Amino acid sequence: MPSFSATTGGDAGGPSPAPAPARGRSVGPVVAQRVQFDRPLPLACGRVLTHYELAYETYGTLDAERSNAVLVCHALNASHHVAGHYAGDPENVGWWDNMVGPGKPLDTDRFFVVGVNNLGSCFGSTGPLTVDPATGKPWGADFPLVTVEDWVDAQARLADHLGIERFAAVMGGSLGGMQALCWAIRYPQRIGNALVIAAAPNLSAQNIAFNEVARQAILTDPDFHGGHFEAAGTKPRRGLRVARMIGHITYLSDEQMEEKFGRELREGLKFSFAPEFQIESYLRYQGEKFAEYYDANTYLRITKALDYFDPAQATGGDLKQALAPARCRFLVVAFTTDWRFSPARSREIVQALVDNDREVAYAEIVAPHGHDAFLLDDPQYLAVVSAYFERIAEQRGGR
Amino acid sequence: MPSFSATTGGDAGGPSPAPAPARGRSVGPVVAQRVQFDRPLPLACGRVLTHYELAYETYGTLDAERSNAVLVCHALNASHHVAGHYAGDPENVGWWDNMVGPGKPLDTDRFFVVGVNNLGSCFGSTGPLTVDPATGKPWGADFPLVTVEDWVDAQARLADHLGIERFAAVMGGSLGGMQALCWAIRYPQRIGNALVIAAAPNLSAQNIAFNEVARQAILTDPDFHGGHFEAAGTKPRRGLRVARMIGHITYLSDEQMEEKFGRELREGLKFSFAPEFQIESYLRYQGEKFAEYYDANTYLRITKALDYFDPAQATGGDLKQALAPARCRFLVVAFTTDWRFSPARSREIVQALVDNDREVAYAEIVAPHGHDAFLLDDPQYLAVVSAYFERIAEQRGGR
Repeated sequence: MPSFSATTGGDAGGPSPAPAPARGRSVGPVVAQRVQFDRPLPLACGRVLTHYELAYETYGTLDAERSNAVLVCHALNASHHVAGHYAGDPENVGWWDNMVGPGKPLDTDRFFVVGVNNLGSCFGSTGPLTVDPATGKPWGADFPLVTVEDWVDAQARLADHLGIERFAAVMGGSLGGMQALCWAIRYPQRIGNALVIAAAPNLSAQNIAFNEVARQAILTDPDFHGGHFEAAGTKPRRGLRVARMIGHITYLSDEQMEEKFGRELREGLKFSFAPEFQIESYLRYQGEKFAEYYDANTYLRITKALDYFDPAQATGGDLKQALAPARCRFLVVAFTTDWRFSPARSREIVQALVDNDREVAYAEIVAPHGHDAFLLDDPQYLAVVSAYFERIAEQRGGR
Repeated sequence: MPSFSATTGGDAGGPSPAPAPARGRSVGPVVAQRVQFDRPLPLACGRVLTHYELAYETYGTLDAERSNAVLVCHALNASHHVAGHYAGDPENVGWWDNMVGPGKPLDTDRFFVVGVNNLGSCFGSTGPLTVDPATGKPWGADFPLVTVEDWVDAQARLADHLGIERFAAVMGGSLGGMQALCWAIRYPQRIGNALVIAAAPNLSAQNIAFNEVARQAILTDPDFHGGHFEAAGTKPRRGLRVARMIGHITYLSDEQMEEKFGRELREGLKFSFAPEFQIESYLRYQGEKFAEYYDANTYLRITKALDYFDPAQATGGDLKQALAPARCRFLVVAFTTDWRFSPARSREIVQALVDNDREVAYAEIVAPHGHDAFLLDDPQYLAVVSAYFERIAEQRGGR
């Protein structure tokens, strides 16, 4: 029977599903930090955030030249808590702890790593749960719809605050990879390398369709109250459950789901709507858990940011032209069984970079885990990322 | 812009999405019939239906030897209305009208075709909307969970009623194909040919997962009232909408969705949760329409029948052994872009039949439309079915 206590992934969130990696150590206890910005941030939607806070964490030490900083961008439901654990809460391990730490692929003995929570999230940065200073009440449904470009602009201001003129690398998986790609286009002088993992140049119609069904589940939940559910003293748990169940199916490969669950029953057929197959229990459990800790207004906004991301929109669909401003080196990684953002989508990015004569390494990892593979301990994958950072370290040494 | 008035498929239901086929004619105006059975029907769940009615239609003429009858089984949301139209309602065309009619692949000039609505449906046969004679109230949530085997048993009694000892063929797509497969195993002496189209020997974990999310959307809709929504004077429209949207994504291929909708916008970005992309409008429209005409208790039961279907369960997972009782000839058809029931699943059936030395023809149709292809006018597909029925007609002539 599959174990539900050691939860598998989801999209860049929750506890690490795989055992602790053999190599490297934990960064140990970490402390989340916050910074308030009073310079207004114009958003793509036309609105302006006059004040906002970003929650972030850092691991490792910024060198004297301020040249070893790496920004890690998160995906749908993760946060600034990338590695290590909070003091007194050893179970609360960062979502990419297998990737980031002393001796790990992103080695905090060499690099100064920054994890940041994005605007609109529900984990610390300004978002729907935050009190709007203009009204004295939580933003809730009135929080603007934010885009990948908005996030990257805010991250650039965090870099300013930290005294980082240029990142050695910006890195992310899934939606995080889209942020790395956006950095390369939007701030070409401020990024030395982009690691774009399990991402796509934009969402397909099918990707948008899955997001839209998830949103409809939330928007039509009577407990959603047009997004003002806090004021109504309730929470759209039903919608969040269904949304997460849909999402979760797309994070796992068909093959992996078959291998883990197949048609295995819990206790034989009951001829009822109680969970009968293991896969039903598993999905319900994932849905329940998510509905407890996640904010519905955030979910709606993050799926919209995904739908909107499309750097080639401004160039009439020409991705080569869209990526022309990029100056950095690239590592693009895709996973063979990822059907959410298939290798073919990563290859579109690679082709557009090659057409621009950019330096790009591409790894297509044979892995059974689907989209969630980017969070897991695939040795080949971790070796590729490790080698790439090794090269970055050498480049820095050689400058 | 895609047209929404000419709706595409769904799973074996709704108006035919493709233009009228070039070949053949309509069977013209048809009349639905009903028959009541008073002999109790034992169900797989252990319960017994003491009385029940089946709605059916027939096209063509049963020959003197009663040897030219073909049973057409329906999938998720279709019915006994397979071909022709109802008098006075020319728009209400049968769901497989491109397949069945004079001069069509299943030629009603040669074959006597029977369409039947399954138990538990909401289109005429006894189901949740029917008044339970024991209580004088609609069955609603108290209607039993029925299985493919139960449906086939009821269909066999309809055959008895019509004086059909043996079908020249039993035919269906998707869940309908599973019924044809079940006929071959359960009533080997009563079926000459099984046409198993766009089907699978059972549902995968991913298939079950999608069904379960759809069910959860319905079961957790506050208007569901534990299935007694009729008594509460309401209807779980929200849940049905979301369920249909999820299902619809799995009926279309990624490629087809990309070609039809891509990232096309309706009127530019609005930075709101109103439909912005064409694919969003399309899915919402499909969901709305479905929620109007479909019964939630039926939806729950039909998805469960899909989940439960697994002839090899009784033989410890050995599909060869499960199919050993079959005596008929087979045509198995799969579509290259069907990711709901992929060609690989059809090939499992073919392999098990070959291993049993059964006569089986297999066609893997290169078609862009995904699972819905079985309802559409692909010339190669229709030619394969046509040729197969030609052979059946010759076999009959040669007996």
